[in-house]
Amino acid sequence: MTELRIGLAGLGTVGAEVARHLLNPSAELHKASAAKLVLRAVSARSATAERGFDMAGLDFEAEASSLARRDDIDLVVELIGGADGPAEALVSAALEAGKPVVTANKALIARHGQRLAELAEARSVALCFEAAVAGGIPAIKLLGTGLAANQISRISGILNGTCNYILSEMAATGRDFSAVLAEAQEKGYAEADPSFDIDGIDAAHKLAILAAMAFGRQVDMQAIKIEGIRPISALDIQQAEKLGFVIRLLGVAARDQTPQVQPCLLSAESQLAKVSGALNAVEFDGVPVENIICIGPGAGAGPTASAVLADILDIAGGRTGPAFGRPAAQLQKGVASAAPQPPQAFYLRLEVADRPGVLSEITAILRDNGISVAAMLQQAAGEAGRASLVLTTHQTSGDAMQAACDRLAGLDVCSGRPLALAILNGDMMGQG
Amino acid sequence: MTELRIGLAGLGTVGAEVARHLLNPSAELHKASAAKLVLRAVSARSATAERGFDMAGLDFEAEASSLARRDDIDLVVELIGGADGPAEALVSAALEAGKPVVTANKALIARHGQRLAELAEARSVALCFEAAVAGGIPAIKLLGTGLAANQISRISGILNGTCNYILSEMAATGRDFSAVLAEAQEKGYAEADPSFDIDGIDAAHKLAILAAMAFGRQVDMQAIKIEGIRPISALDIQQAEKLGFVIRLLGVAARDQTPQVQPCLLSAESQLAKVSGALNAVEFDGVPVENIICIGPGAGAGPTASAVLADILDIAGGRTGPAFGRPAAQLQKGVASAAPQPPQAFYLRLEVADRPGVLSEITAILRDNGISVAAMLQQAAGEAGRASLVLTTHQTSGDAMQAACDRLAGLDVCSGRPLALAILNGDMMGQG
Repeated sequence: MTELRIGLAGLGTVGAEVARHLLNPSAELHKASAAKLVLRAVSARSATAERGFDMAGLDFEAEASSLARRDDIDLVVELIGGADGPAEALVSAALEAGKPVVTANKALIARHGQRLAELAEARSVALCFEAAVAGGIPAIKLLGTGLAANQISRISGILNGTCNYILSEMAATGRDFSAVLAEAQEKGYAEADPSFDIDGIDAAHKLAILAAMAFGRQVDMQAIKIEGIRPISALDIQQAEKLGFVIRLLGVAARDQTPQVQPCLLSAESQLAKVSGALNAVEFDGVPVENIICIGPGAGAGPTASAVLADILDIAGGRTGPAFGRPAAQLQKGVASAAPQPPQAFYLRLEVADRPGVLSEITAILRDNGISVAAMLQQAAGEAGRASLVLTTHQTSGDAMQAACDRLAGLDVCSGRPLALAILNGDMMGQG
Repeated sequence: MTELRIGLAGLGTVGAEVARHLLNPSAELHKASAAKLVLRAVSARSATAERGFDMAGLDFEAEASSLARRDDIDLVVELIGGADGPAEALVSAALEAGKPVVTANKALIARHGQRLAELAEARSVALCFEAAVAGGIPAIKLLGTGLAANQISRISGILNGTCNYILSEMAATGRDFSAVLAEAQEKGYAEADPSFDIDGIDAAHKLAILAAMAFGRQVDMQAIKIEGIRPISALDIQQAEKLGFVIRLLGVAARDQTPQVQPCLLSAESQLAKVSGALNAVEFDGVPVENIICIGPGAGAGPTASAVLADILDIAGGRTGPAFGRPAAQLQKGVASAAPQPPQAFYLRLEVADRPGVLSEITAILRDNGISVAAMLQQAAGEAGRASLVLTTHQTSGDAMQAACDRLAGLDVCSGRPLALAILNGDMMGQG
């Protein structure tokens, strides 16, 4: 049996878990591997921190990129993180040196994926990043193997566990966004600087990678329309629930449409609505398979290690192909011909002055934009003569809704910009 | 690009769908294939039936096995069905002749899988059967690729769409089993002879294959404990709902335990409980991935073709290994050391005489078997002095429950055998 000698950079929770499996001779992956897997050298910030495995016998490199230059390393695993800096330097150097790379780094792949895929192809080595998307859910391998014969029409998913945890907690406890976020930060579920997660960037990285794989496009973060969950209030969640919906941050990439990450209303009866807490889910629509949903832990040491190790096994078994499923030169730049988004129903919340005539000003603007109100849900009096006005609309174009929101935001009686959330399964809305 | 010349036996709905994709040059699978896929010859009952594609240009073989003997065929696809007869003859002959085989035939693999895997290995060709389990859900490829690094501890699933449709319809309409079955037969969702589905045999075939893959065992139908859904009444579904549960036919294979197919109560809040209609679901528990659930269509031309075509792509790309994931000689015979089932709570329904003293006779038998009653749910008066008695128990062993049911069935006051259904998430039951 040939040996596959591994250099591992980054020994955080995921890196340490990967190392423990590689160093444990009775771990399942050794039975499944076509090559003898040997962890040869590691790189991390500290050479001496306690990580639950014996560092003796492993070479230590203070500089991660040094792993790429060692003759006794056949495969580099990058678990440092960050779109640039030492992670990018290591991955580029390893591919340049003709070594296959496994990474969990979604920011790196979302930003530099095309260039790195081209480099890997030029050197005829594999670049694998299953762990970059949806943690333990093998979404990339599903596209490349189990669903390989399908023309995928749409991928959607709950791709950020922090957002899903916050939205689930808000629904379970009735508390407002900021209180739940603060608690999540205390518990370590959210970062001290949470913007990467709650503003939808992290989900967009993953969606960019999935869209590239599914539609044969160059990975392109700029192409994604991104809205985060900061504007979602306890009132929104409560009103959605009354209508039979839950609010989820959903990434949606449909063939020939602009991919979007946005909070939206999902029927409470839908499978994705049941995905709560820090779970992730990826839904595939395609021909001929119809519809497949895969649900699992989107982060955490074990699930992420499962994905990293599966990539190592693919490389050991020679089961790899081009990084994005087809030769990098064949990947299209941008959406071929972006079709307009199909019309959707919307949930709309406005903070307004609580005085006569406001409603008629607002409904006139909606009418002027061709938007028809389905139901007026709530007109809760707030502080100091302000009120929250919640309504739902019949199906309308996203452009019309955006134009209406622009005008509504300019009204004296409105504070701030209205919150407009797409309602998926809009056909379940009342008539009015 | 090398050519892979295909012989396809069986042109029912799935076979015709597979043929249409192979014959359509713009179908996605041709872009994804490492070899040029050419459908060369077919075999079916009729050479002339209209199937939505042009048979001209395809050789026709009246006898399926003839496909195995043709020098101009590199790969045989078997979609005839049935554990023996022409399907078995074709698959054996093809492997014997050194041709790789793709089949959707769960009965064949469940009965002859070990022998066929040995034969395939001896001839160094692939035997692939993704489509035999859970239709469009790539459960086998998930085990072999995305989850390959995991030690799987448990696989469970909703593996028979007919049963799931019947149970879902009973819950939605309140009708009884026989009425819904008759309607399902009229609509073509259930066979004229439905026993294969509703008695759990079909689900057991699939569970046997999954257990073999996940635990490195020889596929063994005899090892599975099977109960079907015939005894489930509208009353059971209604009572389960009151308790916050739904009834599903679940296949469960845990490492070192006897695999079981049985109707059971699942928390209505669980992900599997939301799997309704003809959908299938497969849940994987393992280390380090924790828990992954995959949901999708368990049957139908498109989804099954998706799985068949994915196998063809794996063979075209040289991405195949041993049929059951490890060399056939390494597969264990039987469960190594069957551990006792962990204790479970039960739902129990008895048809009893409606007269004083009956309850004390019954509860005495439960007490004698160490079974503690959690809640007495219903004592509905029926016809002619009979009543349905429904209760739930605290956690107890399956053996104790079986012994109690044996004794209860022998009571003069009981008609027939009591129905005992395991309650998964038994911790959610009331105390008493």
